[in-house]
This record gives sequence, C-alpha cells and structure tokens, in this order.
Amino acid sequence: MIGVWFSELQQPGLAISCLVKEVLHHEKSEYQDIKVVDTERFGRMLLLDDVIQTTVKDEFVYHEMISMVALNTHPNPENVLVIGGGDGGTIREIVKHPKVKKATLVEIDEGVVKASKKYLPELACGFDDPKAEVIIDDGIKFVKESTAQFDVILIDSTDPVGAAEGLFSANFYKSVHNALKEDGIFAAQTESPFFNRDLIKRINKDVREIFPVCRLILANVPTYPGGLWTFTMGSKKYLPEEVDIENIPDLNTRYYSKEIHKSCLVLPPFVKELVE
Amino acid sequence: MIGVWFSELQQPGLAISCLVKEVLHHEKSEYQDIKVVDTERFGRMLLLDDVIQTTVKDEFVYHEMISMVALNTHPNPENVLVIGGGDGGTIREIVKHPKVKKATLVEIDEGVVKASKKYLPELACGFDDPKAEVIIDDGIKFVKESTAQFDVILIDSTDPVGAAEGLFSANFYKSVHNALKEDGIFAAQTESPFFNRDLIKRINKDVREIFPVCRLILANVPTYPGGLWTFTMGSKKYLPEEVDIENIPDLNTRYYSKEIHKSCLVLPPFVKELVE
Repeated sequence: MIGVWFSELQQPGLAISCLVKEVLHHEKSEYQDIKVVDTERFGRMLLLDDVIQTTVKDEFVYHEMISMVALNTHPNPENVLVIGGGDGGTIREIVKHPKVKKATLVEIDEGVVKASKKYLPELACGFDDPKAEVIIDDGIKFVKESTAQFDVILIDSTDPVGAAEGLFSANFYKSVHNALKEDGIFAAQTESPFFNRDLIKRINKDVREIFPVCRLILANVPTYPGGLWTFTMGSKKYLPEEVDIENIPDLNTRYYSKEIHKSCLVLPPFVKELVE
Repeated sequence: MIGVWFSELQQPGLAISCLVKEVLHHEKSEYQDIKVVDTERFGRMLLLDDVIQTTVKDEFVYHEMISMVALNTHPNPENVLVIGGGDGGTIREIVKHPKVKKATLVEIDEGVVKASKKYLPELACGFDDPKAEVIIDDGIKFVKESTAQFDVILIDSTDPVGAAEGLFSANFYKSVHNALKEDGIFAAQTESPFFNRDLIKRINKDVREIFPVCRLILANVPTYPGGLWTFTMGSKKYLPEEVDIENIPDLNTRYYSKEIHKSCLVLPPFVKELVE
C-alpha cells in the first residue's frame, strides 16, 4: 500500500508502521513534539516525540486497565489523582466509577491536553465531567507536595526517557506513598515484559520496598511494542485478588470485567520471574 | 537503524518491520515461498510467503498455548495429531507430555520441515523424539481418511488464505470430529480478536454446531498482528475450566502454567462478544 506511513522504531531492530490518512496536528511544545494523525487502521493516533501514545481504536485497553483494577481494589476510591494522561482517556474511565467524587489530573504539557480536546474528543470528554480537574504542572513536584490526600494515584506516563524518567524512580514511588492515604493504592504503566525486563524487575523491587503489596497487571495493547503490557500496582492495604468481584460495578468496559480483574493478575512464568 | 529490513503488511495500513542480520535460506517450494532470516530482535524467523510464522524469541508462547491447554484438558492424551506445524515447535511441546505415546505430524510442504531442521533446531528438535512421526501429505485429506483414532488434534496452520483456507472450514471441523475418539479434543490457531473478528465468530459458530464444548484461548504472540492471538478449542466431552490444575504436570513451560490454563480462557468483553 502506497502513501504516507508513520513508522516508530519500537525497539532496536523492530518497527511498527501505520498508513496515515491525514496529519491533523503538529506542534513543538516546550516539552516535546506533539502530533495527532488519522490512520487507516487505528483511527486517530496521538504521537509524542513520534512514539505512539494512544489510538482511538485500541485506547480502551490501556485506559480501562490502568484505572479499573486499582479503583476496584480500593473499597472507596473517592479522591483520585492522575499524573500525566493528558489525552483524557484515564480520567474518562475514573469519572465513570460511582464511588469517585473527585479526579485530579496533573499534566506537565498543556499542548497535549489542548490537542486531545480538539482532535481526540472520545478520550478528552473525561475532562468535561464535573468531578474532573486539570492542573498543568510537573507531576513529580505535585506529588512531592501532597500528603495523605489521595485514595488512588494513577501514573499514566510516557516511556521512561526524558521528562518522564523521574516517574519511574524509587524516590517518586516514595512520594506517591506519602501522597496516598493510609489505605491508598497506586498503579503505573510499566512497559513491556518482553522488551523491558530489567526495568520491570527494578520497579517491582523498589515498589516492594515501599509498599506492603505489589502486583503486576497484564493487558494487551496492539500498538505498543510486543502487544503485551504491564502495569505495576502498589497498595498499602488491599489485595486485588481478594476483592469480591461480585461487588464490582458494571461500567460498560470492553477489556476489563469482573473476571478480568482476577485473570489479569495471573502471570505467565516468563513474566512471573521478573517479580520473584 | 539502517540495513536490510523485512516488512510484513499485517493488516491494511499496518506493517511490522524487523532488521535482518542475514537471510539464511530462501526457496520456492511447490506450495509457497520459504525463507529463514536471522533478525536483530527476534533471532531466527520463519517466513512463508513473507508472513512471519514463528521466531526463536517468541515461539514458546504460540507452541505452548496451542498444545498445552488441549493436552491438559484431556485426561489421557495418548495419540496426538498435528496438522501443519512443519517447524516442529508444536510437536516438541507434545512429546514433552508424559501421557503422550505417539505424536503424528502431517505437513503438506516438506520444504518447511527440511528448512526448520537445518535452521531452527530449537523447534525442530521435536522431530527427533521417538514418539514423533512426520508424514508429508495434505492434512485435509489425511484427517478425512482418519476415523476415531486421535485423542487430541492440533491445527497449526498458516493464515486462512490459499492452501490453508480449507483448514478453517466447517467441513474440515466435521472431519476433525470424525477423526477424534469419542472423548477427543481439538485446538486450532484462529487469528486475531482485534483484526479477524468475523472469522473468529464464524469459526466458533461452526465449531459449536459440531462439538458440544467450544472455547477460545487467548495468548500474546508479539510478532503476530496486534499481539493478542486466539486458539479455538472443540471438545467432545471435557471442559478445560473443570480440569483439576493440581494434576497438570510441570513441563518447564515459559508462558503456560497451571494458573494460565484457567486464566487464558477468561475473555475480555470485546472478545467474549465474538463467541456469544
């Protein structure tokens, strides 16, 4: 097929390419290169520094799975914080949850929020909810200055390079621990179990030293390297596998479900060995 | 990164590309174009008509998951048939199982078996097992001529185009039913739940009309379109979810495990709707 293709070098020697129907938006913000392109296969796609962040076709997997496992592990997730997530997909999921009273999103780059509001309304619609508040600020600084405030914190970051690197550090997880109430939970996107094995190991070691409960969550995001993706969850008190799944509200999710709440925690041996 | 890249158009508007260190083998057999290339990211890779079949790095997922769920659902899988699977990875898994007495593989293209023996010894080693027999023949014809012989049949085919198309037909599933003993089980690779939704729906409808038990199995194969892959299982008697997983033998699998035996059957709602 001929035409304009976007290619991302996902790993050394591995690229994904998508046929582009139209480049809808392109700017260089203070922090990064921001593009929204309309693709043949995945619909509209957000690119930051030419790395695929999310697409209209497959975003449900990532956004449901980063939020719902943590939200439904907490018995009363009233006050929720998102770090990053400027496309709005994560906050859209959070505000659907009947127990959530307030969802605060701290995104460093206003350009991402603006571009998403304009070009990705399916995701950014979450910003319009009365429970949602958007703060344009450095998430690391914001979390450092928060104390015992949040029930759930979700770290919806880019890959661990540049500005986002600090969001994968032990010091940051300590700040997250401090910003959570005494029974709080956090979940963070933590890359591929095929390609980022050392990173996942290191994160899980760090989190286990700070939180009494640490779990890996698996989900399949087609536009991410290798398709299989991890989220790492740290919890001060509650265990995701002990949730009575019959109490989980039905929120019309397409990837997450009561049954997936438990099965997403079951790790193939080649992943399990990263957290043992 | 510059150099020689292999690109596969996985879907309209979606391509995967792998940096090639060396083209080890290239022939045009009676049935297809056969290549073995050594790639930077996935090691040696088998290409049939320039579609990725398997790679040394990620093959364990596919080969364990096409075999182990079916084998361990059957209480006594003594006599096993593989249709296709000329690389040897599936038969390698089968012969590991302590209850298997005989594993017959029927591959239409001797070129695939020969190239795999030469260039993919990690997979083709299964052929050397005394329990294994390789027959070069048309799998559809072979199954049609078999009656009540096999405990388990595994259909390890290419995509449903060309010669392999018949392996996805209702008539073939009827022959499979006939070739199985009265408590037999089959499993077949049945493509992507993101991209081949109509196919999966149709197959499951057909299989449900022929077998009393039909289940989808999910696993993540990084080099297949979208990463998430399905296997469809038809069973005359046994239910995979009712297996006492404590009886499952430990065969040093890297993706499959006792726990995965159950969790791989849990379908996200967007997949579940294909089989309801």
